[in-house]
Amino acid sequence: MFEAPTQRVPAAVLTAFTQDLLERHGLSPEHAQLMTANLVEADMRGVKSHGHWLMKRYAGWLDDGDMNARPDVRVVRETSAAVLMDADMAPGHVAGALTMRRVVAKAREAGAATGITRGSRHFGAAAHFALMAAPHDMIGYATTNAGPTLFPFGGRERVVGNNPIAYAIPLEGERPLVLDMAMSVSANGRIAIMEQLGQRLPEGWALDRRGLPTTDPRDFSAGGAGAPIGGPKGVGLAQVVDALTGVLSGSGFARAVSRAAGGAGTISHMFQAFDVAAFMPPAEFKARMAEQIRQFRSTPRAAGVDEIVIPGELEWRAYDDAAAHGVPLLEPVIADLNEIAARKGAPQRL
Amino acid sequence: MFEAPTQRVPAAVLTAFTQDLLERHGLSPEHAQLMTANLVEADMRGVKSHGHWLMKRYAGWLDDGDMNARPDVRVVRETSAAVLMDADMAPGHVAGALTMRRVVAKAREAGAATGITRGSRHFGAAAHFALMAAPHDMIGYATTNAGPTLFPFGGRERVVGNNPIAYAIPLEGERPLVLDMAMSVSANGRIAIMEQLGQRLPEGWALDRRGLPTTDPRDFSAGGAGAPIGGPKGVGLAQVVDALTGVLSGSGFARAVSRAAGGAGTISHMFQAFDVAAFMPPAEFKARMAEQIRQFRSTPRAAGVDEIVIPGELEWRAYDDAAAHGVPLLEPVIADLNEIAARKGAPQRL
Repeated sequence: MFEAPTQRVPAAVLTAFTQDLLERHGLSPEHAQLMTANLVEADMRGVKSHGHWLMKRYAGWLDDGDMNARPDVRVVRETSAAVLMDADMAPGHVAGALTMRRVVAKAREAGAATGITRGSRHFGAAAHFALMAAPHDMIGYATTNAGPTLFPFGGRERVVGNNPIAYAIPLEGERPLVLDMAMSVSANGRIAIMEQLGQRLPEGWALDRRGLPTTDPRDFSAGGAGAPIGGPKGVGLAQVVDALTGVLSGSGFARAVSRAAGGAGTISHMFQAFDVAAFMPPAEFKARMAEQIRQFRSTPRAAGVDEIVIPGELEWRAYDDAAAHGVPLLEPVIADLNEIAARKGAPQRL
Repeated sequence: MFEAPTQRVPAAVLTAFTQDLLERHGLSPEHAQLMTANLVEADMRGVKSHGHWLMKRYAGWLDDGDMNARPDVRVVRETSAAVLMDADMAPGHVAGALTMRRVVAKAREAGAATGITRGSRHFGAAAHFALMAAPHDMIGYATTNAGPTLFPFGGRERVVGNNPIAYAIPLEGERPLVLDMAMSVSANGRIAIMEQLGQRLPEGWALDRRGLPTTDPRDFSAGGAGAPIGGPKGVGLAQVVDALTGVLSGSGFARAVSRAAGGAGTISHMFQAFDVAAFMPPAEFKARMAEQIRQFRSTPRAAGVDEIVIPGELEWRAYDDAAAHGVPLLEPVIADLNEIAARKGAPQRL
């Protein structure tokens, strides 16, 4: 799928199209705007797996009621620096953004704040929420649990999600540093593509159904799993994220984060914001971050390496390119979007 | 070193011995108690690399003033849910514990809180501070930066520490789940031992001075580095930790976290506590955590695996064994401790 040709769509055109399409699925204009911003940003940053590629799935869920187009996203409990919100099965893009807004407001008063969103659905790219803090001179953090795709260490049954964590850190002179990482060595989608192409996997990417390392991508789809980074470390962190989100929120956790386990598979997110001003003047912090990054970039390069890049840097280059020349969308994704638009009676086509 | 024979010392004897030894290095009784608790816990939990093995180094630093035996650990800035403290070159064990106490007190009021400690020194095992939150029905988090030992991704010069992160999560019916992980695939000490023993390293553990993968442990000590978990992911997380600690605190960061770079190599820590009661009744949370863990433990085992263990479980078994039969200390460590005791005129020997 991600090997298909792409076509460029101007960001403003894509934004208007998606906004309209989501409103036609019943979202309020405000909610549609939150979700659109997330999806467009993902495709602009070149994160195709978390952008409009997912619209077909989201459209189906919205039509089926598996994702609530008119949610009552509400505060369940609240203290000065913590909030628990109920998403009411909203798109996670919407419930997550509403939670992160509240977390940023609390961090402005309290110095740092934490929000958890329960009863939510897929929220797109975690980086989007972490980035919401940066314009406020705050460091943002976002994580979520997800349907189980990882084996416990030493096991051979999927029990926990490939739960991502994301940080965004404001900088002087350039866009924020963005680290957005899941817990497996390689994305599941990449392994699936290599299976389609008949390629072998590098060592250390996947486990077979017996829980043993394999380089055959067919073993992955036949009941295997992605290998976690650092073995027990990666899956341990996935378990901790599941605890901080699903267990602590009162929503589904571990195996129960799955449609098969009953219900629509609600998930939970956690967000944090750290107000830089609570620790040092923001301008000074951003200059120090720029110096940290300069040190990383200026080390001698390993043999065969052209350039040392910092987390998120390649995505910002893709973003600039998309802003200047249009957002590259995969042709099958454009076909899906146009089909959904036709079904919903939308006048526009991409 | 870690392959040497061990002798058992009763925990109470070791505690009294270390308390006395630290007071003889100038620490106040209260500070000595904080540091002793950390060191004894590490050895009881079987984490030899972070226990009394380090006392020889600490004793030298305390004697030289590279670690301040009589620090004025003070609050620099404070908001309702955040605090920045200055360690005044204290042992990180002391400054970290004082910061985490304050973080726990703030989290009780605010729901969640964050503390950063600047100008500190080595703090032992990160797990110790995360665990301080558990008796208060809170989830604890601790991290620190450290002297540079990792290459940036694609680089071949050490620019960032193998910065550990630790979480402790309270449970029903057993001790907290404890995840305490550094960012390299294998501990540096383990690679050094394999070099001594003339063994080859498994694939993926180390990089040579050119920044390329190697299985020869001699390449590691000759200007190489440990390989980060997940390549750019592990070193990306190490960079983020350096930002949250060294950059945000105003203390050393990146290359400057090193004695060679001038000064005594001060480091910074970050601590967090999440009050479970801000999100759900603690008893309910702990029961849900126990159920999450039951799901992990009850999956079918991979071929050749006897048991699925959760993070921290093996360490708690070691702890129970040490409590019942004495703390196993390496013979060269006991010799070091006795030598230090003799030098300081202490009456006891282990």
